[in-house]
Amino acid sequence: MIHIKQKYSRGRTVGGLAVMLIVSFFSINSAVEEELMQKARQKFKPIPTQAPQLKDNPITAEKVELGKKLFFDPRLSTSWMISCNSCHNLGMGGVDRLETSIGHGWQRGGRNSPTVLNAVFNLAQFWDGRAKDLMEQAKGPVQAAVEMNSNPDRAVKTLRTIPGYVTLFKAAFPVDANPVTFDNMARAIEAFEATLITPNSRFDQYLAGNEKALNAKEKNGLSIYMSKGCVSCHGGVNAGGEGYYPFGVVEQPGSEILPPDDKGRFAITRTATDEYVFKSPSLRNIELTAPFFHSGKVWDLKQAVAIMGSSQLGMKLNDSEVDDITAFLITLTGDMPKIDYPILPSHTAETPLPDTRSLTPVKGH
Amino acid sequence: MIHIKQKYSRGRTVGGLAVMLIVSFFSINSAVEEELMQKARQKFKPIPTQAPQLKDNPITAEKVELGKKLFFDPRLSTSWMISCNSCHNLGMGGVDRLETSIGHGWQRGGRNSPTVLNAVFNLAQFWDGRAKDLMEQAKGPVQAAVEMNSNPDRAVKTLRTIPGYVTLFKAAFPVDANPVTFDNMARAIEAFEATLITPNSRFDQYLAGNEKALNAKEKNGLSIYMSKGCVSCHGGVNAGGEGYYPFGVVEQPGSEILPPDDKGRFAITRTATDEYVFKSPSLRNIELTAPFFHSGKVWDLKQAVAIMGSSQLGMKLNDSEVDDITAFLITLTGDMPKIDYPILPSHTAETPLPDTRSLTPVKGH
Repeated sequence: MIHIKQKYSRGRTVGGLAVMLIVSFFSINSAVEEELMQKARQKFKPIPTQAPQLKDNPITAEKVELGKKLFFDPRLSTSWMISCNSCHNLGMGGVDRLETSIGHGWQRGGRNSPTVLNAVFNLAQFWDGRAKDLMEQAKGPVQAAVEMNSNPDRAVKTLRTIPGYVTLFKAAFPVDANPVTFDNMARAIEAFEATLITPNSRFDQYLAGNEKALNAKEKNGLSIYMSKGCVSCHGGVNAGGEGYYPFGVVEQPGSEILPPDDKGRFAITRTATDEYVFKSPSLRNIELTAPFFHSGKVWDLKQAVAIMGSSQLGMKLNDSEVDDITAFLITLTGDMPKIDYPILPSHTAETPLPDTRSLTPVKGH
Repeated sequence: MIHIKQKYSRGRTVGGLAVMLIVSFFSINSAVEEELMQKARQKFKPIPTQAPQLKDNPITAEKVELGKKLFFDPRLSTSWMISCNSCHNLGMGGVDRLETSIGHGWQRGGRNSPTVLNAVFNLAQFWDGRAKDLMEQAKGPVQAAVEMNSNPDRAVKTLRTIPGYVTLFKAAFPVDANPVTFDNMARAIEAFEATLITPNSRFDQYLAGNEKALNAKEKNGLSIYMSKGCVSCHGGVNAGGEGYYPFGVVEQPGSEILPPDDKGRFAITRTATDEYVFKSPSLRNIELTAPFFHSGKVWDLKQAVAIMGSSQLGMKLNDSEVDDITAFLITLTGDMPKIDYPILPSHTAETPLPDTRSLTPVKGH
């Protein structure tokens, strides 16, 4: 009995100490945790669960349905081979996972295809921000010789000669006397793209107050991400996409990663300080959108993080920091939009046929 | 009163005659209608509402889900640009609506892309029947230099280094020790493709006994189609796809439509009588699958019908016959399969990267 009592006694004492230590540890830890979450909430906003409203382009079900068909329709290209989805594949994080996209005539595009997912939250579109919104953006690739190689006249003629589209345009733009226009095509695509948002990432669950949504490593990554300065260019709802910054704030990366002939926003503004300036990309779903940077030269996310450390922050992040930041970034992957693959309306005898003059003829069947 | 009575009287008499005439007319007409439906039921079978069972490849939900992802995955091509769906677009009748497909390096394919819809009901695959089933077919385009330009080793290495695929292959082939193989890739694609059937066309509603599913013009077209002999090569469940026939049984079309250097099944069998012999294509959903013939040279369905009349039947169909046959053919369009666009699993550092050496570099961003 005494023996047992002593054991209990000792047990209680030791136990009491342990409980005190653990309580203190958790109190301190809890304060640290609380502070981290508060900081994160100041720097980021979660992706909403509903598509945002668009200025001057109210989102309606009819517009979204039309926009979805247009997004998947290769007949907006002259070859009938390339659709918006070719380079912004909704099954692959809204990108094509190519260094730079393959366009009309198997040409290599100039820059890495940015994701369409959550693009509605960016301050502007394209790497250099030359389109003020998704509506303006949507008109670009249709006309670019290196992408879909079409033009507004051909696109409109294509859509007007497809009765199924005429009906859909009338439903989407009921007050327009002449609804099938290049602008309305772009408006419908914009409305659809505005629905391509990815809420409910683990990080957004964390921002909503679920501190168990991130593990210790990921929280440490978040902490480093905020304390080292990554968040300065990659904060907000999109963890990026809110401003323009020189690639190489501190130290320019090599020409393999930052090709000297692409001076970014300088080509738009012709302002010397805009040389090699690009819109900071959103890091939402970054684990799905390799390869990275406007040049698409880096396939490894850890390597991309390390490069950002040296080029943008002027510091060599150690392996453990890179690992933890990367672990945090992977928590930015949200729920992918669910898409019913659209059945496209049929062309007619008046529809411009695919232009396949550029094809290389081959033998074989 | 008398006046009114007379009118009634006269009315009754005239009415009685009219009723008799109408009854006789409908009796005769009804017999003709009945005979047409009986003949049609002898010559055709409806598309079933459930996917057929496959010999040696039982269809399971897991296999279909895997097959769907593979079907939409451009990483089965070396460029990461071309998927099965590129040339067999499920939003466009299971074809690309190109004369011949655009493949790796913007090469022009040798023959018009046949629809994947209902392909499971064809006696064999490809225009020349060189693949005995969809499993064998699925291996072709992956390896063809003019299509996806890959090979079995690369395809398997790609799939084995994508953990999401490894899991899906294990689920789809649970008894295989080594489930990720080129054959199993093809089996999964076959299982998915077997579900791509289009039941419930107006013609199938007619075959099921609803004689109002076709109008008078369409029924007349059906009648001509059967009496003139079209049904000999284009009958059965697929309205075609059941045998091999020379293009030009009676009269060879011009070299524009039947290019002399593509001798069809002769290249497989090396039998003189197989020169210019092709599998008769299914006419199911034919209104969605222009352009027509293995050469893809004819965009207008009426023109295709007229050419078939002269080349296969040795008769000049008049405009009204062509019109009515075409009206009938359009009743062969069924319900398109509903597809949830698949989210594809992510690659890893070990996955072979896209080979874009063949790309033409261009300026512009």
